[in-house]
Amino acid sequence: MTQKPLHGIKVLDFTNVLAGPYCSMLLGNMGAEIIKVEKQGAGDDSRAFGPHVNGQSVYFMSINRGKKSIVCNTKTEAGRAMFKRLVEKVDLLVENLKPGALERMGLGYDTLKEINPKLVYVSVSGFGHSGPYSPRPAYDMIVQAMGGIISITGQPGGEPVRVGTSVGDIVAGMYGAFGAVNALYQRRKTGLGQKVDIAMFDCQLSILENAIAKYAATGNVPGPLGMRHASITPFQAFSTSDSRIIVACGNNALFRKLCGVLDIPALAEDARFNSNARRTENVDALAEILQEKFSLRATAEWLDTLISAGIPCGPINGVDKLFSDPQVAARNMLVEVDQPGMGAITVAGNPVKLSTVPPEEELPAGPAPAVGEHTQEILVDLLGYSEKEAREYLDAML
Amino acid sequence: MTQKPLHGIKVLDFTNVLAGPYCSMLLGNMGAEIIKVEKQGAGDDSRAFGPHVNGQSVYFMSINRGKKSIVCNTKTEAGRAMFKRLVEKVDLLVENLKPGALERMGLGYDTLKEINPKLVYVSVSGFGHSGPYSPRPAYDMIVQAMGGIISITGQPGGEPVRVGTSVGDIVAGMYGAFGAVNALYQRRKTGLGQKVDIAMFDCQLSILENAIAKYAATGNVPGPLGMRHASITPFQAFSTSDSRIIVACGNNALFRKLCGVLDIPALAEDARFNSNARRTENVDALAEILQEKFSLRATAEWLDTLISAGIPCGPINGVDKLFSDPQVAARNMLVEVDQPGMGAITVAGNPVKLSTVPPEEELPAGPAPAVGEHTQEILVDLLGYSEKEAREYLDAML
Repeated sequence: MTQKPLHGIKVLDFTNVLAGPYCSMLLGNMGAEIIKVEKQGAGDDSRAFGPHVNGQSVYFMSINRGKKSIVCNTKTEAGRAMFKRLVEKVDLLVENLKPGALERMGLGYDTLKEINPKLVYVSVSGFGHSGPYSPRPAYDMIVQAMGGIISITGQPGGEPVRVGTSVGDIVAGMYGAFGAVNALYQRRKTGLGQKVDIAMFDCQLSILENAIAKYAATGNVPGPLGMRHASITPFQAFSTSDSRIIVACGNNALFRKLCGVLDIPALAEDARFNSNARRTENVDALAEILQEKFSLRATAEWLDTLISAGIPCGPINGVDKLFSDPQVAARNMLVEVDQPGMGAITVAGNPVKLSTVPPEEELPAGPAPAVGEHTQEILVDLLGYSEKEAREYLDAML
Repeated sequence: MTQKPLHGIKVLDFTNVLAGPYCSMLLGNMGAEIIKVEKQGAGDDSRAFGPHVNGQSVYFMSINRGKKSIVCNTKTEAGRAMFKRLVEKVDLLVENLKPGALERMGLGYDTLKEINPKLVYVSVSGFGHSGPYSPRPAYDMIVQAMGGIISITGQPGGEPVRVGTSVGDIVAGMYGAFGAVNALYQRRKTGLGQKVDIAMFDCQLSILENAIAKYAATGNVPGPLGMRHASITPFQAFSTSDSRIIVACGNNALFRKLCGVLDIPALAEDARFNSNARRTENVDALAEILQEKFSLRATAEWLDTLISAGIPCGPINGVDKLFSDPQVAARNMLVEVDQPGMGAITVAGNPVKLSTVPPEEELPAGPAPAVGEHTQEILVDLLGYSEKEAREYLDAML
């Protein structure tokens, strides 16, 4: 087995549903050991999210493969005592509770850093641990809406729409993992941990790209752009005889090539279209002419032709298409995990390709845990509970 | 000045436009020194992207604040020689050229690691350094389309739309930065660098969340969901008397509260709506009733009422609204940078809040560089060129 970058790092994972579990998943991909603390019985809320296969949630499974699970009820004395003993042994704590929740249990950062000054504490919450909105509950769709991304997503002039995947949670989980490893890196120099406070709302601002600077400079509020690039033309979707295709010509040379391939070479010299600025100004007229051509053949044919000519293009894939895509296969980006009681189930691979890690080790070994599956192992082997103490602990969790 | 986690780390930043520059921006936020290599004259392509203020691109400025710039034409002997001398001195190289481009210049990873075995080499490209699509050009919209996110974004039954921000580039930049710090962390144990190979396309798969596992388990291809949650109700947007509001009731208790606030308490007991499953089944009937109520008052009034009642909700903010939001201000998420010749311009803050870094130091000091602004300093102070050698280098770059 290869030693991955975070080999030997232990993470106490007190997270639920998506933002926090995504963060610890990324740390697990890099070799950290993830010890997930779950409530007795129901466990992580996402275990109830469909679809289920033989009673197990594929949603939960896809985000929690390779983690260990220990039951803990932090409302009990025994639960809090165990939690503190775990804090002594781990390098990182990741939690996505509402701000103040751990403090109310007597498990706030100030307490935990006394127990383990080397602890890196990563919190992922809706609005962070400071500011007037801090106590508010948040869900992905709420931070997407408040953070501005929804206002720029949708058809031009139409109603804005939510991004189809939970970027409110996922981007926050990614920033949490990035902050965590930075803090670990610093710890090797200082010997001390620190707190990393990630707000889903903050993270939405950080991915607005040019929208913030554009508004700051011009005072124009950006709106939804649909499938078109604001300032490069042609850079949009066209209908083909069987579906749709994206074509992107970033400069005159590419546009000339495109006109050649479409058998309308004169168009490249047309005074309305002979520079990117003019094409953008006359985008509707140009789109009409190009659309007529693209309607004549099927997407696969156009892709072959355009790719041979070196013109950037691509299909609009549904999720099903990814399962037969040769690049996805070559990059090991869909991986089957053998989940006991469920069978082989496909999850996304690890996009961080390291030259020191062979493809078959890019994901941590092992399926998602059953609730509390590793309780005994962690209590006895890691924390040094006697068999009797372990039984008493389990009784106290019921 | 606080020593940030990556204090002392030098990054040779051979990147352009967005995915690569976003990656090095994140490393710079964490304290690394970023040395951007640019072509003489035009520099980074995004310097040409509007809007411009006094001839400077706010787009470029927002992603490159705090970096240094050195001119280098890697097509010249002198340029390649300087590049190699820089490689000796730095910890990290980040590049987002087309795969194979550096190899063709004699600057591929295999060459560079001979020069500096401790070098961490981060590549961010469209399809990665392996697989059949590797040589293909890619833009954000193309990987968004091919990676599946566009197929699940949009109004239900309507045409799919692009995510309004460049998540194809940005997520890849984030994974690049995460991989980079992991490799630095491992280097402190092994003494050796490694290659981090990030594909924008791979990264799109990794943020599809439950869409992959759902399709794998059920065979149903997920489509766009508009502004509604697939399996929780009510969890959607409603029109108010002046705009729109998002309301999210994840369980019966919240729904009962909502019915109380809307003065229709009997609705919570209605056989069509008394469980989440039934509400989801009868989502249109429920939405009609709730919509009628939400139409009666303005968004700000509803927000006050719902937030007091503890019901998760939020407005759909345009980018302008963020500039007056008290939480954004409290979290230092919009920061003014004083750009010479441009004045104060607002950019997004750093969402990774570390307890060891005071708010005023969360972003690196300094504006975005002019093309080659630090050429002399880097040649002479860092690389030990004599004044004469530096002049000869500059002449060779023209």
